[in-house]
Amino acid sequence: MEPVRVGLLGLGTVGGGTVSVLTRNAAEITRRAGRAIHISHAAAKAYDAAGIEGLDRIERISDDAFAVVNDPTVDIVVELIGGYSPALELVLRAIQNGKHVVTANKALIALHGNEIFAAAQERGVTVAFEAAVAGGIPIIKALREGLAANQIEWVAGIINGTSNFILTEMRDKGREFGEVLKEAQALGYAEADPTFDIEGIDAAHKLTILGAIAFGTPLQFDRTYREGISAIEPLDVQYAGELGYRIKHLGIARRTKQGIEMRVHPTLIPERRLIANVEGVMNAVLVHGDAVGPTLYYGAGAGRFPTASAVVADLIDVTRTLTIDSENRVPHLAFQPDALSDTRILPMAEVETAYYLRMQVVDRPGVLAEVTKILGDRQISIEAIIQKEHLDESMFVPVIFLTQRTKEQNMLDAIARIEMLSFIAGAVTRIRVESLA
Amino acid sequence: MEPVRVGLLGLGTVGGGTVSVLTRNAAEITRRAGRAIHISHAAAKAYDAAGIEGLDRIERISDDAFAVVNDPTVDIVVELIGGYSPALELVLRAIQNGKHVVTANKALIALHGNEIFAAAQERGVTVAFEAAVAGGIPIIKALREGLAANQIEWVAGIINGTSNFILTEMRDKGREFGEVLKEAQALGYAEADPTFDIEGIDAAHKLTILGAIAFGTPLQFDRTYREGISAIEPLDVQYAGELGYRIKHLGIARRTKQGIEMRVHPTLIPERRLIANVEGVMNAVLVHGDAVGPTLYYGAGAGRFPTASAVVADLIDVTRTLTIDSENRVPHLAFQPDALSDTRILPMAEVETAYYLRMQVVDRPGVLAEVTKILGDRQISIEAIIQKEHLDESMFVPVIFLTQRTKEQNMLDAIARIEMLSFIAGAVTRIRVESLA
Repeated sequence: MEPVRVGLLGLGTVGGGTVSVLTRNAAEITRRAGRAIHISHAAAKAYDAAGIEGLDRIERISDDAFAVVNDPTVDIVVELIGGYSPALELVLRAIQNGKHVVTANKALIALHGNEIFAAAQERGVTVAFEAAVAGGIPIIKALREGLAANQIEWVAGIINGTSNFILTEMRDKGREFGEVLKEAQALGYAEADPTFDIEGIDAAHKLTILGAIAFGTPLQFDRTYREGISAIEPLDVQYAGELGYRIKHLGIARRTKQGIEMRVHPTLIPERRLIANVEGVMNAVLVHGDAVGPTLYYGAGAGRFPTASAVVADLIDVTRTLTIDSENRVPHLAFQPDALSDTRILPMAEVETAYYLRMQVVDRPGVLAEVTKILGDRQISIEAIIQKEHLDESMFVPVIFLTQRTKEQNMLDAIARIEMLSFIAGAVTRIRVESLA
Repeated sequence: MEPVRVGLLGLGTVGGGTVSVLTRNAAEITRRAGRAIHISHAAAKAYDAAGIEGLDRIERISDDAFAVVNDPTVDIVVELIGGYSPALELVLRAIQNGKHVVTANKALIALHGNEIFAAAQERGVTVAFEAAVAGGIPIIKALREGLAANQIEWVAGIINGTSNFILTEMRDKGREFGEVLKEAQALGYAEADPTFDIEGIDAAHKLTILGAIAFGTPLQFDRTYREGISAIEPLDVQYAGELGYRIKHLGIARRTKQGIEMRVHPTLIPERRLIANVEGVMNAVLVHGDAVGPTLYYGAGAGRFPTASAVVADLIDVTRTLTIDSENRVPHLAFQPDALSDTRILPMAEVETAYYLRMQVVDRPGVLAEVTKILGDRQISIEAIIQKEHLDESMFVPVIFLTQRTKEQNMLDAIARIEMLSFIAGAVTRIRVESLA
């Protein structure tokens, strides 16, 4: 059979990796796909040719991305530019031109996926986006196909390598957040502007995609709650460890009777859970289905070749679907487009979790009784109270509370009340706790 | 669209679970697959109707399995009888009748898969077998599709829950193998005849399938080396722990320049590896691809609903392929049938690993020098030597060697020579060590 002809947008880290993997593993890929996959036309503003294997086999390279999506000889367009514009225009144009699309652009899918998938559906083409979530881990495939027999109950993932690297270093070496962030930037793990990673925006993009696929709802990035890790102190990492927990920056999507929870925030999880032991820049996603129980998927969440691995897997999948009528393909969001539900996404105030609270209290009798009364008045049960040693010469000692599950709003009210007590210094540190069982 | 009509062979643990999952999650499954999946005809010798949801919706149930595979109204046959006969005859008949087949039968696929897949190819039907390896974990899909861009370098899996349960209990509680085996049998984790599990036969069936899919070779069960866990002593579990290792019963498939290694045996692995922390009856498979690096897949490897999860996922996949021409389907063994290679499988004597050796030696000067000389003469480098305390009043003390990698035959020669030394009591315990890095 004739090779499939691919148009590539972007020759940066992932674009270059994709060209290299397709070149290096060409024989293996053809043996699997049944036909060769050939990049015939590429566009990039600027690129570093060194280190890209097989760049010379691309017939045409220019800086005109629209020329690629308008090229009538291209079957599949791979979008690896990133960002919203012109990525959105290019993807929509490719679809209009009847081309299938493969993209690694999580922000684009999370914010504009509904529009993109509707256009693809209309035109009878596929948009594949395995590389958009957790890099090389085939988590989209696992959720959409591998676990298709299940009602998915919840998904919890370490889906941003930068924030996991920072939390791992803080725990291993007892270091401060800001100091580790600088190191991550020096190592190239964090961008010059690290906001997307450390404030959970990148993780929220990915969680938006995972949640929609898990529960059969449209993509709703603006309803995904997020909280970053910049307020985590080494002290909390240490106390969490003493209590048998690790602090991880989790993306959690959960189905409840009241609605769907979609949230990214630092979370204490029991250290005996496999996912608590995912360290450094690695990613992992824990998926709980009603039939299968807990399953976990682990691997590199970013990087040149792991991301290219997902892009090329999508290219092979799409190559196989070239001759299928579109209604028999795996639906973009796992469920048939006319079978998506508008299940409500819960506001964070209604979400129930357990809590870790740390406060600085005056070391004298009766103080803890006041705090426990405030919690008890709001039906918040206490799992453990630990009073630590004085940290310095001050009159305050740190006290840690682990509570049972309660609604976020209830806890916020309790914390506001506790912070008004005269013998409490400063703000109460509050980190959510999940058993993931 | 009309529902897909499924013929089911077997209403035991997994068969009953499959009926229940298809019933319980019918709405969700139809939303995903785009059409309903209906079991119209079933056969079972005897079955326990209690606990099977939706049994009454099956139009016809008898004890005649051939009536199911010959039923012209059945589109897909699900084989959950197990064993070789009549499972093989039934699967081949179903294929001849132009029906797609879904099976959880690892022994059948490992031993007769080449014949079955050739027949299916000839007739243009699909045989799906996700449930045959690692229960509910979608590992076949991950390897065949999710990692299709990669040259797979190695696969290492905990793919038998019974043996992992036994090793976990031995470590947690310092108990003897035989004692834990009895408990596993009482709990229903181990069969009355536990040979398949503890001697690695079941794991070898699964590894045969994983290895073929990873490397694009035919299934070759008879060349898969296996060694059980019955000789593992609590002392070795303890010493391994002191050295920072866990003992796991691993199935390992590895591509080397000399050929492919296919082996199931107890293995020391560093305890900091995620897979070393997979406990109890859980399964996990670590896959190392050249582009993606290490990835891990974890979940329940057996059981009614986890296995049904995989069977039903296959049913959904096959339902989608009903209208595809067969050459565009995912190939049975990941690679196109005419693109399988006959890469040599290495005999165990040629396989290189590191080793843990434990021997009982007379506690006197010069003794260790003789042993290290025997190893040194064979270019076997020593990583560590640890002399333990006397275990009892005897004149012997246990000594542990950790060695660097060497060929199995070389180590066997060294051990034979060591066992001839007059100051060594009994046999040398030898367990292979893998870094899995």
